[in-house]
Amino acid sequence: MNKIFIHDQLIRFSHCDPAGIVYFPRFFDLAHATMEDWFASGVNHSLPDLIRDRRIGTPTVSIQCDFALPLRMGDTLRFELRVSKLGSASVQLAYSGKKVGVEHLKIQQTIVFMALDAGRAVLIPEDLRPRIEQYLVG
Amino acid sequence: MNKIFIHDQLIRFSHCDPAGIVYFPRFFDLAHATMEDWFASGVNHSLPDLIRDRRIGTPTVSIQCDFALPLRMGDTLRFELRVSKLGSASVQLAYSGKKVGVEHLKIQQTIVFMALDAGRAVLIPEDLRPRIEQYLVG
Amino acid sequence: MNKIFIHDQLIRFSHCDPAGIVYFPRFFDLAHATMEDWFASGVNHSLPDLIRDRRIGTPTVSIQCDFALPLRMGDTLRFELRVSKLGSASVQLAYSGKKVGVEHLKIQQTIVFMALDAGRAVLIPEDLRPRIEQYLVG
Amino acid sequence: MNKIFIHDQLIRFSHCDPAGIVYFPRFFDLAHATMEDWFASGVNHSLPDLIRDRRIGTPTVSIQCDFALPLRMGDTLRFELRVSKLGSASVQLAYSGKKVGVEHLKIQQTIVFMALDAGRAVLIPEDLRPRIEQYLVG
Repeated sequence: MNKIFIHDQLIRFSHCDPAGIVYFPRFFDLAHATMEDWFASGVNHSLPDLIRDRRIGTPTVSIQCDFALPLRMGDTLRFELRVSKLGSASVQLAYSGKKVGVEHLKIQQTIVFMALDAGRAVLIPEDLRPRIEQYLVG
Repeated sequence: MNKIFIHDQLIRFSHCDPAGIVYFPRFFDLAHATMEDWFASGVNHSLPDLIRDRRIGTPTVSIQCDFALPLRMGDTLRFELRVSKLGSASVQLAYSGKKVGVEHLKIQQTIVFMALDAGRAVLIPEDLRPRIEQYLVG
Repeated sequence: MNKIFIHDQLIRFSHCDPAGIVYFPRFFDLAHATMEDWFASGVNHSLPDLIRDRRIGTPTVSIQCDFALPLRMGDTLRFELRVSKLGSASVQLAYSGKKVGVEHLKIQQTIVFMALDAGRAVLIPEDLRPRIEQYLVG
Repeated sequence: MNKIFIHDQLIRFSHCDPAGIVYFPRFFDLAHATMEDWFASGVNHSLPDLIRDRRIGTPTVSIQCDFALPLRMGDTLRFELRVSKLGSASVQLAYSGKKVGVEHLKIQQTIVFMALDAGRAVLIPEDLRPRIEQYLVG
């Protein structure tokens, strides 16, 4: 319980803008990569498998980000991922983005489990729910 | 006063994901393009000129997005851009993203005027302020 | 005959890297946008329609690019698009990328018409072929 | 001598297009990441350091790519990187992109060492040259 998923990513040349810092939309790409790796190795069910085998996707319905400090190429961004709220069909994820222990940005994202063919929300699958719950903030 | 900046963009193949809808981080890129064009033709001072001639940038300090309905390739996304708050060094922008008159997403973004070499916030330049104010929600 | 498809695009902040010039992979995105608009208004059949209605895609099988001069944000990139070779199932496209009349880059791209469900090449559709041929270099 | 730099990358959701396969411009981003990691751990001098400390960049002057087979999300792309030609100021890189031992794509890229402030080519730095030469195809 109260598990935290830790995910490190190198800030690359391609993430940075003419001011030499990460162009902010790239942070959402980096957060998405963290979520994908969390599904694969934290929840133990990869998103590609979820999409292919069960025709379930996890679209984002809302996202909020606060940027406190910039990041530059060569930096390592560490995301600490927690589940901040758990609904019947939705999960709220909280990302703390750190560089050497100091928080540079915070993201809060709500995803919904969605039957891709029907185009509507579905209950979080029974087998995934307890694994997701392990990351729920106490 | 109470001006609205209208900006249409075609949703392209490259914006869409394996589910056939816009991959959500691309919306921030699309909103950034709207902001750039607003600076160039609404505020009448382009961001490249601001960066090059005055060494002033406009980093994003916070952003919030709610996604109500998806968009697909071939759709035209219309952003209506308004100024929802005007500080001494910051501007809060409100984007309503519509398809054929129906709102599909909403973004609220706060940018800060920043002296790029000193790396700190500066007052909104005097010559830009009245033009920005024209878009302030009444 | 010998038609040229002219396509202008603004170089944006998001296209540029920490050196202040376009990060080269973005040029392929810009060329793809030119190809999409050529299909829509030059060939008169949009790619989204081709994919949705006929289940035909146009994947790229090879691409070659030479970069002579850089481009910077605020520049306008003009692509002149011609068809340099026309096969039974493939089209070779030649892009000349110019700024104010001076060539900055050249791209040569081969696309293949592909039945998406069968996953194999198909003849260029009869109704599209004569319109594509109009852009063939004499 | 005849060293090969091996680099594995996961194909993510964000790399893929509505046809469910990698959108080809993303391959250049993935190849750039391979080159960055080769500089950092193969050549033992990272590109961010090269840019910051010596004001030397490595812009791409030409690139050629042949796509034989597609890649899908969840696949692991292995790039094998070799130096195929070594000039006084330029390096030609050959990437073989494989999935489970089978080649899916090939890239050939020429980069030039460039003094960023003067904007012109410079000799490959003496300390880097022997390390780059280790990857030269015999």
